[in-house]
This record gives sequence, structure tokens and C-alpha cells, in this order.
Amino acid sequence: MIQRPKVYLAGPDVFFPNPEAWAQRKQAICARHGLIGVSPLDPMADEPAAWAALPEWQRLAVRNEARIRDCDAVIANLTPFRGPSADVGTVYELGFARALGRMVFGYATTAVPFLPRTLDHVGSAAQFDAEGVCRDGEGLLVEQFGLFDNLMIEGAITGSGGALVTADCPAEERWRDLAVFERCVRVAAERLLHQAMPIR
Amino acid sequence: MIQRPKVYLAGPDVFFPNPEAWAQRKQAICARHGLIGVSPLDPMADEPAAWAALPEWQRLAVRNEARIRDCDAVIANLTPFRGPSADVGTVYELGFARALGRMVFGYATTAVPFLPRTLDHVGSAAQFDAEGVCRDGEGLLVEQFGLFDNLMIEGAITGSGGALVTADCPAEERWRDLAVFERCVRVAAERLLHQAMPIR
Repeated sequence: MIQRPKVYLAGPDVFFPNPEAWAQRKQAICARHGLIGVSPLDPMADEPAAWAALPEWQRLAVRNEARIRDCDAVIANLTPFRGPSADVGTVYELGFARALGRMVFGYATTAVPFLPRTLDHVGSAAQFDAEGVCRDGEGLLVEQFGLFDNLMIEGAITGSGGALVTADCPAEERWRDLAVFERCVRVAAERLLHQAMPIR
Repeated sequence: MIQRPKVYLAGPDVFFPNPEAWAQRKQAICARHGLIGVSPLDPMADEPAAWAALPEWQRLAVRNEARIRDCDAVIANLTPFRGPSADVGTVYELGFARALGRMVFGYATTAVPFLPRTLDHVGSAAQFDAEGVCRDGEGLLVEQFGLFDNLMIEGAITGSGGALVTADCPAEERWRDLAVFERCVRVAAERLLHQAMPIR
């Protein structure tokens, strides 16, 4: 029997109000496109008994890692979170998935590139030298590759055969829009269902 | 022949002024403690010829991933970077290393926990409800596990048998101190040299 591809839904969405209902909406979109969306909030089946003794935060961490191992791909919400970059928990999971050879997809509800976002964060302290190299007020370099976020993130997406989908949504829709997510799911479904990808 | 353990030196240190000289100082500390420090800035031996055709940012990404695969452990500079959390490139590399079963160590030149750092970032918009749950001005939850950063990061460190070393340095020493790094290297050396760890 061929199983539908499983995609782990990474993102700061776990911090939203009513995150379970939100995850169900994302999972319904995945299902419409032939994918099984796996949320960090799904109940775990067959959890090792030893995990019951872990502190809650550590149990959450090992569960998420186990879910990623069990999936064929990750779709990550890379919308900037409390700073110019994506949520670090999400980015950790991207790196974890990439090392396992999983396909990595990302999306964001802004299309503003990394450089202007970072300049906005570091403010008037940013300085460009004669060669055009930019540094913040502490002398630390600002990446200028014309990418959407840190180069490791886009390296994972490009290297894994995934895709990055971004679009400018109104600021108040930043954490409420699902249209950009659905565009990303559509691309992921095309690649996972129609390419020579081992379905596990 | 037994090789000394190799540790990948992850961190926003690649953005410092004179990053090669800085990396050499870190590598000298590693050597004093019996470890080989591998910097993202080291020249690559035996690089696949195909990488020459990649854009620079992507070549940097695949090189860093190859370096991590070649190391026994990662020592990551988790000092908060342009926001309340660590640099996302560094955190990506932690996740990558963890999925490969590498030991993961972290250090920071501040000991201020994640919660007060995040509250400082979100400002007066933070609200605590009757159960003590904290949300930012957009209604997004603020983690309250008493950890140093996002739970995935500390999950990796704890789960891999690594360690987290933090200390409060003066603000102007935040990117210049090497004492906290050396304490972390000492702990890493003890674990990598004296525990039943396969030396590759």
C-alpha cells in the first residue's frame, strides 16, 4: 500500500492562541493536497515509557524530533519571529530534517528580504564601508546575499529540492493568513507526489 | 592511531571583524584541551568539484554541513544575536548535528534566562493571564520553562550528553570574551576524551 507523504508542520504556530484548532486547519489544507500534515501538537502513539519521566520541555523536544524522523518532509513557517529571522525552534527542526535527508519547504507571510529586515532591526547603527560591506553597531557583519533569511536556511531548502514561498500579507494578517501556506503545500505536494521520491 | 576529537565551532563569530584571527584564538584554546577546533572559515580539503559552480552562499552552506558531518561534536556560541534568541544559522547547525547523533555543547556570555530576555524584547505589550501564561502583543505565547533559550536547543544539548555554560560578562565583552568559551571547551574535552565515545 502506498502511503500519502507525511509532512511535519514546523513553526511558531504552536505559540498561537488555540494552536490545536489552527493545526487542524493546516492539516485540512494538507489533506486537500494529498499530504498528511503532522503537527507538534498531535498525540503521540507508542511513546517510549521512559519519556514519561522527562521534564515537560524535554519531552516536547524529543517528541518533535521523533515526529520529524517519521515524516518525509518539513513545511516550516519562516515568518520573522521576535527579530529579523525565523523562530529558532523552527530553524533547529529544519537543520534536523536536512541532516536526515528530508525535503525542506518554507513559507512566510512577508516577502521583505533579510537585509532590509536586519537593517530595520539594527537601526541607525548600521554602517556600510567603502566596499559596501555592512556591519551593525557592534561591528558584526550583516549578510548581503539577497536571501530571505540566514544562508543555512536557504541552503537546506535549495539543497533538499524543496521550495520557499513568500508573499506580502498585511501586517495584521501575518499570523492569520493561510493562503501562503497553501501555496507552499501545493508545491510540496507536486514534488512529493510526482517526483521519484521514496514514499516511506 | 587515535585521533583527537574534532569539534565544529558554530556561532555568529563568522560575522566578527577579523573572523579568521578570532577562529585561530578559539582553535588554540581547543588544542590546549586536546581537541581539534574546526572553524567554518577553515579551507576545505577534497571539496567536490561540483561545488565550484554553486553560488557563494550555497557553497558556504554545504561546506558547513560537510564540516559538521566530519566532526564528533559541536560547540555553539548561543549568545543572543539580534533578538532574544541565538543566531539562527548556529541553531540550524545544532539541529543538523543532533540528527547525526553528535554531542552538542553551547555557551553564552550572558546568563540572563530566555523569559526575561524575551520580555525585554516584546516590551510593555507582554501580558500575563490569570493562570500566569504570558503572551506578547500579538497574542503569541512566551515560553516559560526556565530555560536559556527555545526548548529544542536545550533538548539537543541535554539529550546528546552535552552541556550549556553561561556567565554574565560585561555588555561590551559580549562578543570579545573567551573565558566562557574555554570553560565550555574544558567540559567538552572531559566528555569527549574520557567517556566511552567512539573517536572517529
